[in-house]
Amino acid sequence: MLDPHRAPEKSDTAPHPGKPVVGRVSHKGQQTKQSIVEAALALSSQVGLEGISIGAVAEATGRSKSGVFAHFGSREELQISVIREYFRQFEQEVFYPAIREKRGLPRLMALFDHWMRVVANELQFGCIFISGAVDFDDRPGPVRDALAQSVEVWLGAVVRAVHQAKQEGHIHANADEHQVAFEIHGLILAVHYEARFLKKPGSIERALQAFKHIVQRYGTAQALSEFSAA
Amino acid sequence: MLDPHRAPEKSDTAPHPGKPVVGRVSHKGQQTKQSIVEAALALSSQVGLEGISIGAVAEATGRSKSGVFAHFGSREELQISVIREYFRQFEQEVFYPAIREKRGLPRLMALFDHWMRVVANELQFGCIFISGAVDFDDRPGPVRDALAQSVEVWLGAVVRAVHQAKQEGHIHANADEHQVAFEIHGLILAVHYEARFLKKPGSIERALQAFKHIVQRYGTAQALSEFSAA
Repeated sequence: MLDPHRAPEKSDTAPHPGKPVVGRVSHKGQQTKQSIVEAALALSSQVGLEGISIGAVAEATGRSKSGVFAHFGSREELQISVIREYFRQFEQEVFYPAIREKRGLPRLMALFDHWMRVVANELQFGCIFISGAVDFDDRPGPVRDALAQSVEVWLGAVVRAVHQAKQEGHIHANADEHQVAFEIHGLILAVHYEARFLKKPGSIERALQAFKHIVQRYGTAQALSEFSAA
Repeated sequence: MLDPHRAPEKSDTAPHPGKPVVGRVSHKGQQTKQSIVEAALALSSQVGLEGISIGAVAEATGRSKSGVFAHFGSREELQISVIREYFRQFEQEVFYPAIREKRGLPRLMALFDHWMRVVANELQFGCIFISGAVDFDDRPGPVRDALAQSVEVWLGAVVRAVHQAKQEGHIHANADEHQVAFEIHGLILAVHYEARFLKKPGSIERALQAFKHIVQRYGTAQALSEFSAA
Protein backbone atom coordinates (compact mmCIF):
# COMPACT_ATOMS: atom_id res chain seq x y z
CA MET A 1 0.00 0.00 0.00
CA LEU A 2 1.31 3.45 -0.85
CA ASP A 3 1.60 6.23 1.61
CA PRO A 4 0.33 9.10 -0.52
CA HIS A 5 2.12 11.54 1.73
CA ARG A 6 5.39 10.00 0.68
CA ALA A 7 4.50 9.72 -2.98
CA PRO A 8 6.97 11.66 -5.12
CA GLU A 9 5.85 15.18 -5.76
CA LYS A 10 6.27 16.88 -9.10
CA SER A 11 8.83 19.13 -7.42
CA ASP A 12 11.03 16.08 -6.69
CA THR A 13 11.25 14.94 -10.26
CA ALA A 14 13.69 16.30 -12.79
CA PRO A 15 11.89 18.57 -15.22
CA HIS A 16 11.57 17.41 -18.79
CA PRO A 17 13.75 19.38 -21.16
CA GLY A 18 11.77 21.97 -23.03
CA LYS A 19 8.95 21.87 -20.50
CA PRO A 20 8.43 24.61 -17.98
CA VAL A 21 10.03 24.00 -14.60
CA VAL A 22 6.98 23.14 -12.54
CA GLY A 23 7.23 23.48 -8.81
CA ARG A 24 11.03 23.26 -8.67
CA VAL A 25 11.42 26.24 -6.50
CA SER A 26 13.35 27.83 -3.68
CA HIS A 27 12.58 27.57 0.02
CA LYS A 28 10.47 30.70 -0.31
CA GLY A 29 8.71 29.05 -3.24
CA GLN A 30 7.99 26.02 -1.05
CA GLN A 31 6.47 28.27 1.60
CA THR A 32 4.30 29.94 -1.01
CA LYS A 33 3.20 26.57 -2.34
CA GLN A 34 2.38 25.40 1.17
CA SER A 35 0.31 28.51 1.88
CA ILE A 36 -1.61 28.01 -1.37
CA VAL A 37 -2.30 24.37 -0.46
CA GLU A 38 -3.57 25.38 2.97
CA ALA A 39 -5.86 27.99 1.41
CA ALA A 40 -7.08 25.41 -1.10
CA LEU A 41 -7.81 22.95 1.72
CA ALA A 42 -9.82 25.61 3.54
CA LEU A 43 -11.68 26.38 0.31
CA SER A 44 -12.43 22.67 -0.22
CA SER A 45 -14.37 22.65 3.06
CA GLN A 46 -16.85 24.98 1.36
CA VAL A 47 -16.86 23.84 -2.25
CA GLY A 48 -15.69 20.24 -1.91
CA LEU A 49 -12.59 18.76 -3.44
CA GLU A 50 -14.42 18.76 -6.73
CA GLY A 51 -14.81 22.55 -6.56
CA ILE A 52 -11.04 23.04 -6.33
CA SER A 53 -9.54 24.45 -9.52
CA ILE A 54 -6.57 26.62 -10.39
CA GLY A 55 -8.96 29.53 -11.03
CA ALA A 56 -10.96 29.13 -7.81
CA VAL A 57 -7.81 28.92 -5.69
CA ALA A 58 -6.24 31.88 -7.52
CA GLU A 59 -9.32 33.93 -6.74
CA ALA A 60 -9.46 32.80 -3.11
CA THR A 61 -5.80 33.64 -2.53
CA GLY A 62 -5.70 36.83 -4.58
CA ARG A 63 -3.08 35.37 -6.92
CA SER A 64 -2.91 35.13 -10.67
CA LYS A 65 -3.98 31.88 -12.29
CA SER A 66 -0.55 31.54 -13.87
CA GLY A 67 1.02 32.05 -10.42
CA VAL A 68 -0.99 29.16 -8.95
CA PHE A 69 -0.46 27.04 -12.05
CA ALA A 70 3.32 27.44 -11.79
CA HIS A 71 3.27 25.67 -8.43
CA PHE A 72 1.10 22.72 -9.41
CA GLY A 73 1.03 22.37 -13.17
CA SER A 74 -2.50 21.01 -13.27
CA ARG A 75 -5.81 21.08 -11.48
CA GLU A 76 -5.44 17.41 -10.58
CA GLU A 77 -2.02 17.96 -9.00
CA LEU A 78 -3.54 20.81 -6.98
CA GLN A 79 -6.37 18.55 -5.81
CA ILE A 80 -3.90 15.79 -4.94
CA SER A 81 -1.83 18.31 -2.95
CA VAL A 82 -4.97 19.21 -0.99
CA ILE A 83 -5.54 15.52 -0.22
CA ARG A 84 -1.92 15.13 0.94
CA GLU A 85 -2.20 18.19 3.16
CA TYR A 86 -5.45 16.94 4.66
CA PHE A 87 -3.81 13.57 5.28
CA ARG A 88 -0.75 15.24 6.87
CA GLN A 89 -2.95 17.20 9.27
CA PHE A 90 -5.03 14.12 10.02
CA GLU A 91 -1.86 12.17 10.82
CA GLN A 92 -0.70 14.90 13.17
CA GLU A 93 -4.01 15.19 14.98
CA VAL A 94 -4.89 11.50 15.18
CA PHE A 95 -2.00 9.20 14.44
CA TYR A 96 0.94 10.84 16.25
CA PRO A 97 -0.86 11.44 19.54
CA ALA A 98 -2.09 7.81 19.45
CA ILE A 99 1.31 6.19 18.89
CA ARG A 100 2.54 7.85 22.07
CA GLU A 101 0.10 5.55 23.90
CA LYS A 102 0.94 2.03 24.99
CA ARG A 103 0.86 -0.55 22.17
CA GLY A 104 -2.38 -2.53 22.08
CA LEU A 105 -5.80 -1.57 23.32
CA PRO A 106 -4.71 1.79 24.81
CA ARG A 107 -3.36 2.86 21.42
CA LEU A 108 -6.45 1.65 19.56
CA MET A 109 -8.64 3.52 22.02
CA ALA A 110 -6.53 6.65 21.59
CA LEU A 111 -6.80 6.39 17.79
CA PHE A 112 -10.58 6.34 18.03
CA ASP A 113 -10.65 9.06 20.66
CA HIS A 114 -8.56 11.47 18.57
CA TRP A 115 -10.44 10.52 15.43
CA MET A 116 -13.69 11.46 17.13
CA ARG A 117 -12.21 14.81 18.11
CA VAL A 118 -11.35 15.51 14.49
CA VAL A 119 -14.85 14.46 13.43
CA ALA A 120 -16.38 16.75 16.06
CA ASN A 121 -14.31 19.65 14.74
CA GLU A 122 -15.17 18.78 11.17
CA LEU A 123 -18.93 18.73 11.68
CA GLN A 124 -19.01 22.35 10.64
CA PHE A 125 -16.85 21.92 7.55
CA GLY A 126 -17.19 18.33 6.42
CA CYS A 127 -14.47 15.80 5.82
CA ILE A 128 -12.89 15.43 2.40
CA PHE A 129 -12.37 11.70 2.97
CA ILE A 130 -16.19 11.45 3.07
CA SER A 131 -17.35 14.16 0.67
CA GLY A 132 -14.49 13.31 -1.72
CA ALA A 133 -15.65 9.69 -1.79
CA VAL A 134 -19.03 10.85 -3.09
CA ASP A 135 -17.52 13.37 -5.52
CA PHE A 136 -15.04 10.92 -7.01
CA ASP A 137 -16.54 7.45 -6.58
CA ASP A 138 -17.47 7.27 -10.23
CA ARG A 139 -14.54 9.25 -11.62
CA PRO A 140 -11.50 7.06 -12.06
CA GLY A 141 -8.18 8.90 -12.18
CA PRO A 142 -5.29 10.14 -10.08
CA VAL A 143 -7.42 12.27 -7.73
CA ARG A 144 -9.71 9.38 -6.84
CA ASP A 145 -6.67 7.14 -6.44
CA ALA A 146 -4.88 9.60 -4.14
CA LEU A 147 -7.99 9.92 -2.01
CA ALA A 148 -8.60 6.18 -1.83
CA GLN A 149 -4.93 5.54 -1.00
CA SER A 150 -5.05 8.08 1.82
CA VAL A 151 -8.07 6.40 3.31
CA GLU A 152 -6.52 2.95 2.86
CA VAL A 153 -3.34 4.07 4.63
CA TRP A 154 -5.43 5.38 7.46
CA LEU A 155 -7.63 2.27 7.74
CA GLY A 156 -4.40 0.27 7.53
CA ALA A 157 -3.21 2.07 10.66
CA VAL A 158 -6.37 0.96 12.44
CA VAL A 159 -5.89 -2.62 11.27
CA ARG A 160 -2.28 -2.49 12.54
CA ALA A 161 -3.38 -1.16 15.91
CA VAL A 162 -5.89 -4.02 16.22
CA HIS A 163 -3.21 -6.52 15.20
CA GLN A 164 -0.84 -5.20 17.86
CA ALA A 165 -3.64 -5.39 20.42
CA LYS A 166 -3.97 -9.08 19.54
CA GLN A 167 -0.22 -9.56 19.96
CA GLU A 168 -0.39 -7.89 23.36
CA GLY A 169 -3.22 -10.20 24.39
CA HIS A 170 -5.65 -7.29 24.67
CA ILE A 171 -7.91 -8.48 21.87
CA HIS A 172 -8.93 -12.08 21.31
CA ALA A 173 -6.51 -13.96 19.06
CA ASN A 174 -9.30 -15.08 16.72
CA ALA A 175 -10.54 -11.54 15.99
CA ASP A 176 -10.37 -10.47 12.34
CA GLU A 177 -8.50 -7.13 12.23
CA HIS A 178 -10.28 -6.06 9.06
CA GLN A 179 -13.68 -6.83 10.55
CA VAL A 180 -12.90 -4.71 13.61
CA ALA A 181 -11.63 -1.84 11.44
CA PHE A 182 -14.78 -2.05 9.28
CA GLU A 183 -17.02 -1.78 12.34
CA ILE A 184 -15.04 1.21 13.67
CA HIS A 185 -15.14 2.89 10.26
CA GLY A 186 -18.94 2.56 10.27
CA LEU A 187 -19.15 4.50 13.53
CA ILE A 188 -17.14 7.39 12.11
CA LEU A 189 -19.34 7.52 9.02
CA ALA A 190 -22.53 7.31 11.10
CA VAL A 191 -21.56 10.10 13.46
CA HIS A 192 -20.60 12.29 10.53
CA TYR A 193 -23.88 11.58 8.74
CA GLU A 194 -26.20 11.86 11.73
CA ALA A 195 -24.55 14.86 13.38
CA ARG A 196 -23.63 16.84 10.27
CA PHE A 197 -26.51 16.09 7.92
CA LEU A 198 -29.38 15.11 10.20
CA LYS A 199 -28.15 17.43 12.99
CA LYS A 200 -29.04 14.81 15.60
CA PRO A 201 -27.87 15.69 19.07
CA GLY A 202 -26.03 12.97 20.97
CA SER A 203 -24.46 11.35 17.89
CA ILE A 204 -20.93 11.60 19.24
CA GLU A 205 -21.98 9.99 22.52
CA ARG A 206 -23.63 7.17 20.55
CA ALA A 207 -20.42 6.59 18.59
CA LEU A 208 -18.36 6.49 21.80
CA GLN A 209 -20.84 4.03 23.30
CA ALA A 210 -20.78 1.88 20.16
CA PHE A 211 -16.98 1.87 20.22
CA LYS A 212 -17.15 0.57 23.78
CA HIS A 213 -19.39 -2.22 22.53
CA ILE A 214 -16.82 -3.14 19.90
CA VAL A 215 -14.02 -3.16 22.48
CA GLN A 216 -16.15 -5.25 24.85
CA ARG A 217 -16.87 -7.73 22.09
CA TYR A 218 -13.29 -8.25 20.97
CA GLY A 219 -11.32 -7.41 24.12
CA THR A 220 -9.95 -10.05 26.50
CA ALA A 221 -11.33 -10.01 30.03
CA GLN A 222 -7.98 -9.03 31.47
CA ALA A 223 -7.49 -6.10 29.09
CA LEU A 224 -11.03 -4.85 29.69
CA SER A 225 -10.50 -4.71 33.44
CA GLU A 226 -6.96 -3.35 33.13
CA PHE A 227 -7.90 -0.47 30.82
CA SER A 228 -11.35 0.13 32.30
CA ALA A 229 -12.90 -0.26 28.87
CA ALA A 230 -15.81 -2.36 30.13
CA MET B 1 -41.95 13.30 12.04
CA LEU B 2 -43.25 13.82 8.54
CA ASP B 3 -43.53 11.13 5.99
CA PRO B 4 -42.28 12.96 2.93
CA HIS B 5 -44.06 10.51 0.70
CA ARG B 6 -47.33 11.66 2.17
CA ALA B 7 -46.46 15.34 2.16
CA PRO B 8 -48.96 17.29 0.06
CA GLU B 9 -47.84 17.64 -3.50
CA LYS B 10 -48.25 20.80 -5.50
CA SER B 11 -50.85 18.99 -7.56
CA ASP B 12 -52.99 18.51 -4.45
CA THR B 13 -53.26 22.17 -3.65
CA ALA B 14 -55.70 24.57 -5.26
CA PRO B 15 -53.89 26.75 -7.77
CA HIS B 16 -53.50 30.39 -6.93
CA PRO B 17 -55.65 32.63 -9.09
CA GLY B 18 -53.65 34.20 -11.85
CA LYS B 19 -50.84 31.65 -11.53
CA PRO B 20 -50.37 28.86 -14.06
CA VAL B 21 -51.97 25.58 -13.09
CA VAL B 22 -48.91 23.59 -12.06
CA GLY B 23 -49.19 19.82 -12.03
CA ARG B 24 -52.99 19.73 -11.86
CA VAL B 25 -53.34 17.37 -14.65
CA SER B 26 -55.23 14.43 -16.03
CA HIS B 27 -54.46 10.77 -15.50
CA LYS B 28 -52.33 10.85 -18.62
CA GLY B 29 -50.59 13.90 -17.20
CA GLN B 30 -49.88 11.99 -14.00
CA GLN B 31 -48.37 9.16 -16.02
CA THR B 32 -46.19 11.61 -17.90
CA LYS B 33 -45.11 13.23 -14.66
CA GLN B 34 -44.26 9.84 -13.18
CA SER B 35 -42.20 8.87 -16.20
CA ILE B 36 -40.27 12.15 -15.97
CA VAL B 37 -39.61 11.56 -12.28
CA GLU B 38 -38.33 8.05 -12.98
CA ALA B 39 -36.03 9.38 -15.70
CA ALA B 40 -34.82 12.11 -13.34
CA LEU B 41 -34.10 9.51 -10.65
CA ALA B 42 -32.07 7.46 -13.13
CA LEU B 43 -30.22 10.61 -14.17
CA SER B 44 -29.48 11.45 -10.53
CA SER B 45 -27.52 8.21 -10.21
CA GLN B 46 -25.05 9.68 -12.69
CA VAL B 47 -25.04 13.38 -11.87
CA GLY B 48 -26.21 13.38 -8.27
CA LEU B 49 -29.32 15.01 -6.92
CA GLU B 50 -27.50 18.29 -7.21
CA GLY B 51 -27.09 17.81 -10.96
CA ILE B 52 -30.85 17.53 -11.44
CA SER B 53 -32.35 20.58 -13.13
CA ILE B 54 -35.33 21.26 -15.39
CA GLY B 55 -32.92 21.64 -18.32
CA ALA B 56 -30.93 18.47 -17.63
CA VAL B 57 -34.08 16.38 -17.25
CA ALA B 58 -35.63 17.93 -20.35
CA GLU B 59 -32.54 16.99 -22.33
CA ALA B 60 -32.42 13.47 -20.89
CA THR B 61 -36.08 12.81 -21.69
CA GLY B 62 -36.18 14.58 -25.05
CA ARG B 63 -38.80 17.05 -23.81
CA SER B 64 -38.98 20.79 -23.90
CA LYS B 65 -37.91 22.69 -20.79
CA SER B 66 -41.33 24.28 -20.60
CA GLY B 67 -42.90 20.82 -20.81
CA VAL B 68 -40.91 19.59 -17.79
CA PHE B 69 -41.44 22.88 -15.97
CA ALA B 70 -45.22 22.59 -16.36
CA HIS B 71 -45.17 19.38 -14.29
CA PHE B 72 -43.00 20.62 -11.43
CA GLY B 73 -42.95 24.40 -11.40
CA SER B 74 -39.42 24.64 -10.05
CA ARG B 75 -36.10 22.83 -9.97
CA GLU B 76 -36.49 22.26 -6.22
CA GLU B 77 -39.90 20.64 -6.65
CA LEU B 78 -38.37 18.38 -9.30
CA GLN B 79 -35.54 17.41 -6.94
CA ILE B 80 -38.02 16.79 -4.13
CA SER B 81 -40.09 14.59 -6.45
CA VAL B 82 -36.95 12.54 -7.16
CA ILE B 83 -36.38 12.10 -3.43
CA ARG B 84 -40.00 10.99 -2.95
CA GLU B 85 -39.71 8.51 -5.79
CA TYR B 86 -36.46 7.11 -4.39
CA PHE B 87 -38.12 6.81 -1.00
CA ARG B 88 -41.15 5.10 -2.52
CA GLN B 89 -38.98 2.50 -4.26
CA PHE B 90 -36.91 2.04 -1.11
CA GLU B 91 -40.09 1.43 0.89
CA GLN B 92 -41.24 -1.16 -1.63
CA GLU B 93 -37.93 -3.00 -1.73
CA VAL B 94 -37.07 -2.87 1.97
CA PHE B 95 -39.97 -1.91 4.17
CA TYR B 96 -42.89 -3.84 2.70
CA PRO B 97 -41.10 -7.19 2.41
CA ALA B 98 -39.90 -6.77 6.03
CA ILE B 99 -43.30 -6.05 7.57
CA ARG B 100 -44.52 -9.37 6.20
CA GLU B 101 -42.11 -11.00 8.67
CA LYS B 102 -42.96 -11.77 12.29
CA ARG B 103 -42.87 -8.73 14.58
CA GLY B 104 -39.65 -8.46 16.55
CA LEU B 105 -36.22 -9.79 15.72
CA PRO B 106 -37.30 -11.57 12.50
CA ARG B 107 -38.66 -8.28 11.13
CA LEU B 108 -35.55 -6.33 12.18
CA MET B 109 -33.36 -8.96 10.54
CA ALA B 110 -35.46 -8.80 7.38
CA LEU B 111 -35.18 -5.00 7.29
CA PHE B 112 -31.39 -5.24 7.38
CA ASP B 113 -31.32 -8.09 4.92
CA HIS B 114 -33.40 -6.24 2.33
CA TRP B 115 -31.53 -3.02 2.98
CA MET B 116 -28.27 -4.82 2.20
CA ARG B 117 -29.74 -6.10 -1.04
CA VAL B 118 -30.59 -2.55 -2.06
CA VAL B 119 -27.10 -1.40 -1.11
CA ALA B 120 -25.56 -4.23 -3.14
CA ASN B 121 -27.63 -3.17 -6.14
CA GLU B 122 -26.74 0.46 -5.61
CA LEU B 123 -23.00 -0.04 -5.52
CA GLN B 124 -22.91 0.66 -9.20
CA PHE B 125 -25.05 3.78 -9.06
CA GLY B 126 -24.73 5.24 -5.60
CA CYS B 127 -27.45 6.06 -3.13
CA ILE B 128 -29.03 9.51 -3.07
CA PHE B 129 -29.56 9.25 0.69
CA ILE B 130 -25.75 9.17 0.96
CA SER B 131 -24.58 11.32 -1.95
CA GLY B 132 -27.42 13.78 -1.32
CA ALA B 133 -26.29 14.19 2.28
CA VAL B 134 -22.90 15.36 1.02
CA ASP B 135 -24.40 17.55 -1.70
CA PHE B 136 -26.88 19.26 0.59
CA ASP B 137 -25.38 19.13 4.08
CA ASP B 138 -24.45 22.79 3.94
CA ARG B 139 -27.37 24.00 1.84
CA PRO B 140 -30.43 24.65 3.97
CA GLY B 141 -33.72 24.61 2.10
CA PRO B 142 -36.61 22.42 1.07
CA VAL B 143 -34.51 19.87 -0.84
CA ARG B 144 -32.20 19.24 2.13
CA ASP B 145 -35.26 19.05 4.37
CA ALA B 146 -37.04 16.55 2.12
CA LEU B 147 -33.93 14.39 2.00
CA ALA B 148 -33.34 14.53 5.75
CA GLN B 149 -37.01 13.78 6.44
CA SER B 150 -36.90 10.74 4.15
CA VAL B 151 -33.86 9.39 5.99
CA GLU B 152 -35.45 10.16 9.38
CA VAL B 153 -38.61 8.31 8.41
CA TRP B 154 -36.52 5.38 7.38
CA LEU B 155 -34.34 5.38 10.51
CA GLY B 156 -37.56 5.76 12.48
CA ALA B 157 -38.76 2.50 10.96
CA VAL B 158 -35.61 0.80 12.23
CA VAL B 159 -36.11 2.30 15.70
CA ARG B 160 -39.70 1.04 15.67
CA ALA B 161 -38.62 -2.45 14.66
CA VAL B 162 -36.12 -2.51 17.54
CA HIS B 163 -38.80 -1.26 19.92
CA GLN B 164 -41.17 -4.02 18.83
CA ALA B 165 -38.39 -6.55 19.26
CA LYS B 166 -38.05 -5.36 22.86
CA GLN B 167 -41.81 -5.72 23.35
CA GLU B 168 -41.64 -9.26 22.00
CA GLY B 169 -38.83 -10.08 24.42
CA HIS B 170 -36.40 -10.63 21.54
CA ILE B 171 -34.14 -7.73 22.48
CA HIS B 172 -33.13 -6.84 26.03
CA ALA B 173 -35.54 -4.43 27.68
CA ASN B 174 -32.76 -2.00 28.61
CA ALA B 175 -31.49 -1.61 25.02
CA ASP B 176 -31.65 1.92 23.62
CA GLU B 177 -33.50 1.75 20.28
CA HIS B 178 -31.71 4.81 18.92
CA GLN B 179 -28.32 3.38 19.84
CA VAL B 180 -29.11 0.15 18.01
CA ALA B 181 -30.36 2.06 14.94
CA PHE B 182 -27.21 4.21 14.97
CA GLU B 183 -24.98 1.14 14.97
CA ILE B 184 -26.95 -0.44 12.12
CA HIS B 185 -26.84 2.80 10.13
CA GLY B 186 -23.05 2.80 10.48
CA LEU B 187 -22.83 -0.63 8.84
CA ILE B 188 -24.82 0.55 5.83
CA LEU B 189 -22.62 3.61 5.42
CA ALA B 190 -19.44 1.54 5.84
CA VAL B 191 -20.42 -1.06 3.26
CA HIS B 192 -21.36 1.66 0.81
CA TYR B 193 -18.06 3.49 1.37
CA GLU B 194 -15.76 0.49 1.37
CA ALA B 195 -17.40 -1.42 -1.47
CA ARG B 196 -18.30 1.50 -3.72
CA PHE B 197 -15.43 3.92 -3.19
CA LEU B 198 -12.56 1.71 -1.99
CA LYS B 199 -13.81 -1.26 -4.07
CA LYS B 200 -12.92 -3.63 -1.22
CA PRO B 201 -14.10 -7.16 -1.79
CA GLY B 202 -15.94 -8.80 1.09
CA SER B 203 -17.51 -5.59 2.41
CA ILE B 204 -21.05 -6.95 2.29
CA GLU B 205 -20.00 -10.07 4.18
CA ARG B 206 -18.36 -7.85 6.82
CA ALA B 207 -21.55 -5.85 7.21
CA LEU B 208 -23.62 -9.04 7.59
CA GLN B 209 -21.16 -10.31 10.18
CA ALA B 210 -21.22 -7.00 12.04
CA PHE B 211 -25.03 -7.03 12.05
CA LYS B 212 -24.88 -10.48 13.67
CA HIS B 213 -22.63 -9.00 16.35
CA ILE B 214 -25.21 -6.27 17.02
CA VAL B 215 -28.01 -8.84 17.25
CA GLN B 216 -25.90 -11.01 19.54
CA ARG B 217 -25.16 -8.04 21.78
CA TYR B 218 -28.74 -6.88 22.17
CA GLY B 219 -30.72 -10.07 21.63
CA THR B 220 -32.10 -12.20 24.43
CA ALA B 221 -30.73 -15.73 24.75
CA GLN B 222 -34.10 -17.23 23.89
CA ALA B 223 -34.56 -15.14 20.75
CA LEU B 224 -31.02 -15.85 19.58
CA SER B 225 -31.58 -19.59 19.77
CA GLU B 226 -35.11 -19.39 18.38
CA PHE B 227 -34.16 -17.35 15.30
CA SER B 228 -30.69 -18.88 14.85
CA ALA B 229 -29.13 -15.44 14.91
CA ALA B 230 -26.24 -16.52 17.14
